[in-house]
Amino acid sequence: MEQKRTEISTLGEFGLIRHLTEKFKTQNTSTLKSVGDDAAVLDYGQKKILVTTDLLLEGIHFDLQYTPLKHLGYKSAVVNFSDIYAMNGQPKQITVSLGVSKRFSIEDLDEIYDGIRLACENYGVDLVGGDTSASLTGLTISITCLGEADADKIVYRNGAKPNDLICVSGNLGAAYMGLQLLEREKRVFEGNNDVQPDFEGKDYILQRQLKPEARRDVIEALAEHGIKPTAMMDISDGLSSELMHICSQSNTGCRVYEDKIPIDYQSAVMADELNMNIVTCALNGGEDYELLFTASLEDYEKLVLLENVSMVGHITKPEYGLNLVGREGEEIPLKAQGWNSLQ
Amino acid sequence: MEQKRTEISTLGEFGLIRHLTEKFKTQNTSTLKSVGDDAAVLDYGQKKILVTTDLLLEGIHFDLQYTPLKHLGYKSAVVNFSDIYAMNGQPKQITVSLGVSKRFSIEDLDEIYDGIRLACENYGVDLVGGDTSASLTGLTISITCLGEADADKIVYRNGAKPNDLICVSGNLGAAYMGLQLLEREKRVFEGNNDVQPDFEGKDYILQRQLKPEARRDVIEALAEHGIKPTAMMDISDGLSSELMHICSQSNTGCRVYEDKIPIDYQSAVMADELNMNIVTCALNGGEDYELLFTASLEDYEKLVLLENVSMVGHITKPEYGLNLVGREGEEIPLKAQGWNSLQ
Repeated sequence: MEQKRTEISTLGEFGLIRHLTEKFKTQNTSTLKSVGDDAAVLDYGQKKILVTTDLLLEGIHFDLQYTPLKHLGYKSAVVNFSDIYAMNGQPKQITVSLGVSKRFSIEDLDEIYDGIRLACENYGVDLVGGDTSASLTGLTISITCLGEADADKIVYRNGAKPNDLICVSGNLGAAYMGLQLLEREKRVFEGNNDVQPDFEGKDYILQRQLKPEARRDVIEALAEHGIKPTAMMDISDGLSSELMHICSQSNTGCRVYEDKIPIDYQSAVMADELNMNIVTCALNGGEDYELLFTASLEDYEKLVLLENVSMVGHITKPEYGLNLVGREGEEIPLKAQGWNSLQ
Repeated sequence: MEQKRTEISTLGEFGLIRHLTEKFKTQNTSTLKSVGDDAAVLDYGQKKILVTTDLLLEGIHFDLQYTPLKHLGYKSAVVNFSDIYAMNGQPKQITVSLGVSKRFSIEDLDEIYDGIRLACENYGVDLVGGDTSASLTGLTISITCLGEADADKIVYRNGAKPNDLICVSGNLGAAYMGLQLLEREKRVFEGNNDVQPDFEGKDYILQRQLKPEARRDVIEALAEHGIKPTAMMDISDGLSSELMHICSQSNTGCRVYEDKIPIDYQSAVMADELNMNIVTCALNGGEDYELLFTASLEDYEKLVLLENVSMVGHITKPEYGLNLVGREGEEIPLKAQGWNSLQ
């Protein structure tokens, strides 16, 4: 009898994770929050522990033809810190596992670890373990990050309420435009070795792709102004995709206004050069590592004082659905076309 | 100018980890013990948190031609639990990251997760997170395990003192003999598809290779009998290699007696069939996941009551070196020929 075979792509990444984990039963009272958010929450005394992990594979998550190893190390660490901040916590420790093929030298690994170390120094995080192994092919980086938070400060994805304001930090789509630029120059370079890549005036979008930062500053500003978001997550797969997570887990709808979505000048210029729609890129481009959060209307006066935070819409009752309001006032249903390595 | 290139193999696995991590400075008072033991120890309140991580790569750590996926999942989790027990702690949570190529189906991943789930149920551990990604080649499994321990119960590698007894649980070399058997039958099978593998009377060594257990029972027995080891670690790279870790970190030597090393009957028979020296296999074969610990002579009367624990030698002053005492009384310096994926 032939065995049943279902392609992984039929479930999608989140469906697959749910499928694989739904049969696990929580057994310890110390497990307060398991799979389903940016980080797990464990109760080991007064402070809660946040745990998050990311697996980065060569050819899937990064292309070493244009990614400096030090930047790769920095980014690998920072994307984990971003998940801890997205719970309103502070990253404290990481473990780093590397799988490396024979084409990498000690100097190469030094570069990666220099990047990780810089990230650790910048964000006050300790490297506390790991594993290093040979690999038959390519580079594998697996990082787990632990963070701490007071129990009453943790912000989940499921707390958004109708009329809450929807806010995002920084601007969106820049990392995606940086990636498009790198891919374009790679193609040019492959066709003609005499051509130098043309990165002039593109430093910001390149930095957003190659060396992103986590928004500790925003978490600190929220605390200073006495604002506790009702829901929060980091934007790694695109605003549309993340809004769907928050609305789905909070059982709400949302309205987001196209003209409120923060976009940097370099991103807009790059999109224009490539004949792409910058709003689509801002909604669906991955790897921004900005924070998306919702906050009570009562916090409006405080929110307007925050630098680097834009209000882009509001939460609605679930029956209104998830919509983008265009510049002419038209409503367009939001689609999650976010980046998904399993498709 | 040509860049300096040093091959990774020149440092070896432990040298490489030291090299890569020595420049990291601990920044948080909550980091009690960082890199250098089976798990990191973090202070988040009354209970200490233990963290350990393992990266398993297809073709390096496992061969899917003879490793059932469910067994692989089980083993991937258990080897992490083993590290937590080796600190005298209790594993409580794991995160699991998988990288999978298109040749794997949902059913395949179900098999892996069924194995992980069985391990979690058997050992009372919660799955609390992870990451799943496409991979261009092969299967990657990265697991991080958190465990808890009372501060005064944690056992490190650096506490052995001269005259302490050296103890090991279970028996050694069985997992390695199981691997040799699987490799032999694979070669036979590749040469002739009509031949069925001959595993009769070898079930124990196969189980030790494919579905090892962590020695929770030994940790519990030690606690019941009021024994706190002076140093402890799990035996994953072979007894010789692990003794070197304990003696090096404790600044001691050791004497181990060849005729005291516990060896199972099936392992001895298999070694005989393959014309291998079973003591060499017991000293240097990997993946036993037994516990190696040292205990004060004062605990001798309690130790003899323990099932599944053998006393194999004693700790000496460092100037005596690390020696195996042969059956004729001859002293042979111990060498670490343990399994090293980076060579």
